[in-house]
Amino acid sequence: MPASGAKLNTGPTTAEFQAIERLAIALAGDDPQVVCGIGDDAAVLQPGAGQQLVTCTDTLVAGVHFPAQASAADIGWKSLAVNLSDLAAMGARPRYAQLSLTLPELSSTWLDGFIEGWRPLAQAHGVTLIGGDTTRGPLSITVQLLGETSPDKILRRSGGRPGDLLAVTGSLGAAALALRQLQSNQQPAPDALDRLHRPQPRVTAGQALAGLASACIDLSDGLANDLDHLLRASGVGAEVSVAALPIDALLDGLSPQQRLNLALGGGDDYELCCSVPEHAAPRAKQLLAELDLKWTPIGRLTADRELVWQERGSLQITEGWRHFAGTSK
Amino acid sequence: MPASGAKLNTGPTTAEFQAIERLAIALAGDDPQVVCGIGDDAAVLQPGAGQQLVTCTDTLVAGVHFPAQASAADIGWKSLAVNLSDLAAMGARPRYAQLSLTLPELSSTWLDGFIEGWRPLAQAHGVTLIGGDTTRGPLSITVQLLGETSPDKILRRSGGRPGDLLAVTGSLGAAALALRQLQSNQQPAPDALDRLHRPQPRVTAGQALAGLASACIDLSDGLANDLDHLLRASGVGAEVSVAALPIDALLDGLSPQQRLNLALGGGDDYELCCSVPEHAAPRAKQLLAELDLKWTPIGRLTADRELVWQERGSLQITEGWRHFAGTSK
Repeated sequence: MPASGAKLNTGPTTAEFQAIERLAIALAGDDPQVVCGIGDDAAVLQPGAGQQLVTCTDTLVAGVHFPAQASAADIGWKSLAVNLSDLAAMGARPRYAQLSLTLPELSSTWLDGFIEGWRPLAQAHGVTLIGGDTTRGPLSITVQLLGETSPDKILRRSGGRPGDLLAVTGSLGAAALALRQLQSNQQPAPDALDRLHRPQPRVTAGQALAGLASACIDLSDGLANDLDHLLRASGVGAEVSVAALPIDALLDGLSPQQRLNLALGGGDDYELCCSVPEHAAPRAKQLLAELDLKWTPIGRLTADRELVWQERGSLQITEGWRHFAGTSK
Repeated sequence: MPASGAKLNTGPTTAEFQAIERLAIALAGDDPQVVCGIGDDAAVLQPGAGQQLVTCTDTLVAGVHFPAQASAADIGWKSLAVNLSDLAAMGARPRYAQLSLTLPELSSTWLDGFIEGWRPLAQAHGVTLIGGDTTRGPLSITVQLLGETSPDKILRRSGGRPGDLLAVTGSLGAAALALRQLQSNQQPAPDALDRLHRPQPRVTAGQALAGLASACIDLSDGLANDLDHLLRASGVGAEVSVAALPIDALLDGLSPQQRLNLALGGGDDYELCCSVPEHAAPRAKQLLAELDLKWTPIGRLTADRELVWQERGSLQITEGWRHFAGTSK
């Protein structure tokens, strides 16, 4: 059926059942807490004793969140990664995924590619597919994750206090660099492309920081935007040293202003930005070092609710990219 | 920004935050088990003691699951209703929703309409919005629901046994009639339109049947298709009386074959089809009567794994509508 022949009120086909079966075989697991998985009207889970449940959802739309020509494998990886990043920011342990795939047509080649991208990341973080939906329509992927955490180990955006150290994991700007290059028909370096298409969600770092950090957020929209959310939620301000920002070495050839634009406003970093009380900072630093993950103090929280960028000289601060810019009514 | 100017890697705008805030104010509630709701990277829930968790997700795409010209209020109602219907089929009590809205543009008028449709149904079934996502792209809505159930009260597709009574709630075919009329530029009767745009998920009926019925499925793709799923999952067959089917009175003017086509293959009924052991049937009938909901025995499960349509004379049996028909590779 051509896309223009879209039929309303359509039920599943044999091909659709085969697709669901293919996903189920490849991505579902053998988890004793899954009472009822793929194949019924809903999934049934037995929550872990003493655990709280953490849940998030993110949609990726072709041409908005990934280039229309992105490979199915890259889409599979990234659609899971961005959701894992949200659980990471909460300090949660990922457990279960539901996957809603909207596809122009059901292609087994595309599904196999998607599985190839999704599976290694799911296995690395212990994620079992428990349900979802396949639908015909413009390419779009909605993932919903469920994780668990102990009640005393939740990382929220709102716990930051004046005097807390502010730090970020990893480095900033490489994914944004790759995207800008793709948009200008330049070929990005393989490492930069990897940062764009295969972000590494900081799940273990989030769990290490849980109980130590006072507040945490993942960096999806650029540090300038995301830090602003953390500060608002915590009701504090911050002094941030521009000179201290861990800008990725892949940006070394750019002008200082370009580097800063990409590091603060580019987005797609999927690093964690967190605040840590002074006394907990050495322990946090040590745990991150054990994970072989860079951890860079960039400033401090302040009481005055202002975000002050220090040591920036004549550089301008760019905000994050805008989603619905100009279209709101 | 025009739709053709889609920008990759875009972060949230002020308008998007306002939209999320609008949804949060209108649809989030004051639930003591919500430890952390809208406004962080993920939501945190305290599971009910002794309860199992039931979760489902369904995507509605414009032009596929609802007419492109459907009102925002009808879309709001239906996107929640079809998911509630999945929880109903499991006998679960709905609790929490996550809402992923993909919209061509953020219009506060559209959002208000969506809220107007969603809210009364959410209130009727105790559903609290705990999170979600707003994204720019072709109109599509993915809802994910979380519900609770006692471990001994789960309704699955797989528990049907030979000899069990087969029954359906309500009546069949009215939503499909309205859809066919809309597709032929005819004006459906208000009651038929209501069945199409405002289906009533059988949530309380599902909970009443939990512990009594041996198997259950909701009718989204037409009885012929959905009954087939129940039979396969239970490893049984059925004898169904065509004369006994509760075809909606709105179809009275049609030919017997047209009535049967819509009742068996039309879809969008969102009634429940369940099997009930003989001894439990009177109690099930009584509970459904107390809910003022029609409950019609249509046949029995059999051991031979065949689905036999009895008393159909010369009528042909139509299967459900096909989703990806002709596009699979």
